[in-house]
Order: sequence, then C-alpha cells, then structure tokens
Amino acid sequence: MRTQVAIIGAGPSGLLLGQLLHKAGIDNIIVERQSGEYVLGRIRAGILEQITTDLLREVGVGQRLDAEGTVHHSIELVFAGTRHAIDVHGLTNGKVVTAYGQTELTRDLMEARSAAALPTVYEAANVEVLGYDGNNPKVRYQKDGQTHEIECDFIAGCDGFHGVCRASVPKGAITEFEKVYPFGWLGVLADVPPVSPHAIVYANSERGFALCSMRSPTRSRYYVQCPLDDKVEDWSDQRFWDELRLRLDPEMASRVITGPTIEKSIAPLRSFVAEPMRFGRMFLAGDAAHIVPPTGAKGLNLAASDVKYLSGAFIEYYQEKSSAGIDTYSERCLRRVWKAERFSWWLTSLMHRFPDTAGFGQKIQEAELDYVVNSESMSRSLAENYVGLPLNFGAR
Amino acid sequence: MRTQVAIIGAGPSGLLLGQLLHKAGIDNIIVERQSGEYVLGRIRAGILEQITTDLLREVGVGQRLDAEGTVHHSIELVFAGTRHAIDVHGLTNGKVVTAYGQTELTRDLMEARSAAALPTVYEAANVEVLGYDGNNPKVRYQKDGQTHEIECDFIAGCDGFHGVCRASVPKGAITEFEKVYPFGWLGVLADVPPVSPHAIVYANSERGFALCSMRSPTRSRYYVQCPLDDKVEDWSDQRFWDELRLRLDPEMASRVITGPTIEKSIAPLRSFVAEPMRFGRMFLAGDAAHIVPPTGAKGLNLAASDVKYLSGAFIEYYQEKSSAGIDTYSERCLRRVWKAERFSWWLTSLMHRFPDTAGFGQKIQEAELDYVVNSESMSRSLAENYVGLPLNFGAR
Repeated sequence: MRTQVAIIGAGPSGLLLGQLLHKAGIDNIIVERQSGEYVLGRIRAGILEQITTDLLREVGVGQRLDAEGTVHHSIELVFAGTRHAIDVHGLTNGKVVTAYGQTELTRDLMEARSAAALPTVYEAANVEVLGYDGNNPKVRYQKDGQTHEIECDFIAGCDGFHGVCRASVPKGAITEFEKVYPFGWLGVLADVPPVSPHAIVYANSERGFALCSMRSPTRSRYYVQCPLDDKVEDWSDQRFWDELRLRLDPEMASRVITGPTIEKSIAPLRSFVAEPMRFGRMFLAGDAAHIVPPTGAKGLNLAASDVKYLSGAFIEYYQEKSSAGIDTYSERCLRRVWKAERFSWWLTSLMHRFPDTAGFGQKIQEAELDYVVNSESMSRSLAENYVGLPLNFGAR
Repeated sequence: MRTQVAIIGAGPSGLLLGQLLHKAGIDNIIVERQSGEYVLGRIRAGILEQITTDLLREVGVGQRLDAEGTVHHSIELVFAGTRHAIDVHGLTNGKVVTAYGQTELTRDLMEARSAAALPTVYEAANVEVLGYDGNNPKVRYQKDGQTHEIECDFIAGCDGFHGVCRASVPKGAITEFEKVYPFGWLGVLADVPPVSPHAIVYANSERGFALCSMRSPTRSRYYVQCPLDDKVEDWSDQRFWDELRLRLDPEMASRVITGPTIEKSIAPLRSFVAEPMRFGRMFLAGDAAHIVPPTGAKGLNLAASDVKYLSGAFIEYYQEKSSAGIDTYSERCLRRVWKAERFSWWLTSLMHRFPDTAGFGQKIQEAELDYVVNSESMSRSLAENYVGLPLNFGAR
C-alpha cells in the first residue's frame, strides 16, 4: 500500500487531520491499534475553543456540534465560600467556548470519514514506524495474522501519550519535560441536569478542588480532587455528592441534583512536553507530544491547533512545493504548547490544595483569586487563555 | 510621660506615621532601640510607588525626593538572552515609580521630625509594650540607667520583623504564614552609573536571577541570586561583575560599568504574614507584620500603605470619635498585604532558578515571560501591581 500521509491513531487528532488533508486532496490512511468502539468508549474532555469548533465546521462536521453543543459565555470561580463570574465573552470581544463531549466529536469525525470512504485500519497490532529519517518512511503492522506495510511521504504521530511514534525516537534525539502533581481527580458522569448549565464552575476550597461541567443539558460531569492512592471503591456515589457539595458555595451546593453515576474513575494529573515535535518525515501531534492537566480543558484544543499547523504544512508542501511549514512546524507548535502548558499549570496550581504548602499556599491562592476577580486585566488574561490564545499569538 | 500614640520604631514607617499624626494634631512619641545613625546605615529598598511619594509630599518631605529621585516609566525583562520593555507608564494610564533610596527617605523624615521638635527616644533598651488589651497601654524602656514609662491611648508597632511588638503577643492570638525561598540575593552598591538609568532590569537566566537598579545617576544597586550558604568572601568584585554580565543580554552586559563596591551583602528571601494586625490598642504596621521578598520592591511601599490606613484610623478616632477605621484596620491592611505578597511571590517564582524544578520549571518561566511580554492584559497586570494597586482595590 502507498499513501501520502500515514496517520497513526484514530482519536480526534488523527481523524481531524485526515479530514483536513482529504479536503485538500491529500491521500491518507489511518492506522489504529484499537477498535473503533474502544476509541469511542474513552471519556475525555468536552470544552472546545473557537479554533477547534471552526476546524470542525471547516471539515463539514459542525452540524451536530451546532445543534447539541452548549455555548459557555462565562466561567464561575468559587473560593472562600463565595462565587464569582468571569464574563469570558465580554472580556474577549465576543469569544466563547462550547461544551461538546469528545466522544460525540469523535463519532462525528468517524462518520464523516466513513461517508467519504477514507481508509482506516482498526485493530492494527504491533504498529512500527520506520525510515522517517530518510526519504521513504513506512508503517508496518499486523492484522488478521498478516504483516502489512504502508509506504508514505510522511508519518503523522497522533497516537497519544502511550503511542508508538514518540517511543520510536532514539533517546538522544528527544528532550522530555514533566511535572506530576501530588493528587488526582475523581470524575463522575451522571444523567442529571448540570448545576451550572451555562458555565464551568471551578471551586477552590480548603477541602480541595472541585469542578462542575456538563456534556449536555441532561448529562453532567463532576470532579473532585482526591489523594492519588484513593481507589474508586472508596467513593460511593453518596460520598462523592456529599464531598462535591462541601466544596461549593452554599447556594450552588443546594442546587446540585444527584443521581446514580454512570462512570466513575480516578485520573492522575500530569504536565508533559517532548521536544522537538518533528523527526525527519515524522511529526507528532496532540497527546503524543504533550499532556496537560485537565484543569484548563486544553488537551483536545491543543491537539486541534497542532493538527491545524500540520495540515497547513502538508498542504503547503504538496500545493506550493514549499517545506517552510514543515520546517517551522515544531517551533510554532511548541510556542503555543508551552503557553497552554503554562496556563494549565497555573490554573491547576491556583485551584488545588497542595499537601506541602498548606497555610501560606492557601492564602496566596485566595489572594490571587481575589485579585483575578477584581482586576480587569487579570480577568482578561484568564479569559483570553480560556478561549484559546490566537494562533498567531506573539508571532516573531 | 503621656502621649496619644506611642510609636515603636524610628524606621520609615514609624517616622512617616509620626509626621502624618503630627500634621493632624495628634501627639506622638517615637521609641527606637537603635541610634539614629544605625537606622540611617541600613541599606534597603529604593523604589517608591506613587502612593508612597504622595504620602511623603503630604507630610512636606517631598522636596529632595522630587529633585533627586529618578522617575521610572518602564521595567525591562531579560529572558532567553533577549530584553523586552514593559511600558508601565502607558499600561497604567500614566503611573510611575520613583527610585529614591530608603536611606535618603529616612533622613528626610528624620530631619522633618527634628525641625518640628517632635520627641524621639533613640537607644531605648529593653522596650516593653504593656496593657494594650485594656484601656491604658504603656511603653516601658530603659535609657541612661533609668526606667521610663509612656502612657498612651494607642501603640503603633513599627518596629520591624524582629521587633518587640509582634513578639509580645501571646502565641494563640496570632497566626503566622511563611515561605522561605531556597536561595539568597547577593547585593552590591557601587558608585558607578547604572546600566539602565530609567528602568529596573529583571533578568531570568539559566544561571539564576539578576537585578539592575539604581540609587542615583551615579550610584548603582545590583543583585544576583546565589546559594543561601554562599559567603560574601566567596564573591570578589570581579566575580560579581562577571556573573552579573553573564545573566544579562549581551548588549546590556557590554554596557555595565564596573567599579569597586562600597557595600556587599547576602540576604535570604522570605514571605511572611502575621494575622491579625491589631491587638486591642496595639497596631502592627510594615515589616512588624509582614515581609516580602525584595523582588517586587513592595516592602517599603506596603509599610507606607499600612501607615496611611493607620493614620486615617487614628484621625477618625480623635476627630470624629469613630472607631470604624480602627476596627477595620487589620482587615483592610491584610487584603492589600496579601495582594502584594502574591505579586512578590509570583515575580520571585517567575524570575529565579529553583533548584528542585530545573527543566520543566525553567520552560514554564520562559513561556510565562513570553506570555507576559506579548499579552497586553498580562503586561497590564504586571504594571498595575508594580506601580501599586489602588488603595481601594476590590473594596467590598
């Protein structure tokens, strides 16, 4: 088999990249280790920046997003027992974010890919990426007991943090930066109306962080900070709802509608960046190159902007015979990535209880939150990061 | 002896408070453990917010400040080997800071106090503050072999971090918050023209932080971050100048004018707040209640705003028979104090090399600095804190 761009990974990054390339007349094959059902079963982010929703519309998958997504004009900060709204829309000259589950978005992209009859290999075992240092990269995998090879011009590594692409790079050619946080998030999904249907709620409390978000007007996603060594079994539904309420302001707490949870899991929080994001003819995008703690809802959006840069670079290469986009891909992505890493780290640091900085740390957090809500410039800074910095931010 | 307000400490806070009270016709006596010469010999801060310069002019000691102080319209940030100006004046609708050494300011206030023949007891030994929980507070001290007592309505504790006033409060009545930083500042004073005569320079480098400031057009104050266990003897003048240059951008480094240092010392960096700031009829102000790392130049300015609130509270008490100002003093001060603590901690965290967060920490710093200089809202946030938040900031 031969294609122009072999994409590893059929998550949102790979699927979105495939659609963008297809629209530009660039052949691509996606190779995915898991089944389509498995990919769809992963419950992840759900807050989309305008850059991301624009991209989805650009590739023709905006209909359901526009019909079912919920636009958020503001965010709500709870601290010292009081709630404060940040008017994101007003502070950014009209920008918003949209709540729309990653599962839904993935399904839309899969259906579009299927409708266009674009090739996707699911359940590809032992995927290998080869020869990307030279001019003839190859993807090798096993399926149905046979070994297959795809020859290509470029490999796009959209295969996530644990994927094969970054792992295939020799140690000396890559630098990794990492921070692991001393706590996790216990998240639940429940078919109850969200307590705050038009904004995400971020709560800083002496008991720890809590977050109220939504997937739809009838499906809520809630989180509470928990010790890393807690087990899901430690948390009955009742204990979860009780704890959530204790971390909100009393008025909001009284409005939380509870119900049986349909998913409950504990996830660690990690910041991670691998540099560079290009290795000869292989390019990393999304979680394959960087991870953010979920606090700022930046993971999926960062994957989308990587893909935007990468599709642009490939289009430039094929249509204009220019390698300028390819040559600057890593640098342009990383500049944006580190801004989102900074924001995610900042918001995580601001909102969580850190076991080792108890007294002074909590007071500094409350002072910073009081500053954020009372300073127009700092509110604006929060808002402009929340909706996503412009793609050309600080361009040199 | 009897007075209305007994002030402990003849540093800038105590002297400024004395002048403000005197102007309002309120009697006060200052009691100071050291000699006047000793107080004048302490080399400290030198960057004044407008709130501070306004207060100095209000008490009639603005002449030399206006003649000899140097107005700074901007600050300069150096990182990744490049220099960026932050237009503080433009970003704050015309606010500025003024470089004028604390020694000069103290001398001006001392002279004004002396000219008004206001009583100051220097070299008072074994100062004790008594009875401030009741209605008859007293200050007791020894001088010239005799024990003296001052009866008063109120005691103002302007006696610094190591002073007797905070130390006299029973442990259970006070809560202390503290953060000690894992490095120090090596500072030198030299009679050479400053490399940047119109702005303070803050440098983030992989070798550590450096700061270029000035006391006058012919006297410079420079600092470099150093390990806490370094000794002044480890640092020859030559080593200091070499290290300073290595932390600046090449163009600025080439312009540093060196010369023999006239003072060289190593100081630790500490954040500290004691709550509350009022105990019956005793009030803490300035370093007696809180310490900031010097990075944001907030220590002296915070003392000035405490004193502004405190003098207002006493004036309200004597002129309007109202204790409203007295009753809200601690809360109003602390709200402002924590904002300045936050800013000082933030700028310290942003600019220094932290031994334990090397790789990820340095990248986050550079991303944040790149964000600060490219985001108007974040530049404005830095600027508004640098010139000092308004006294009524976020008033509830």
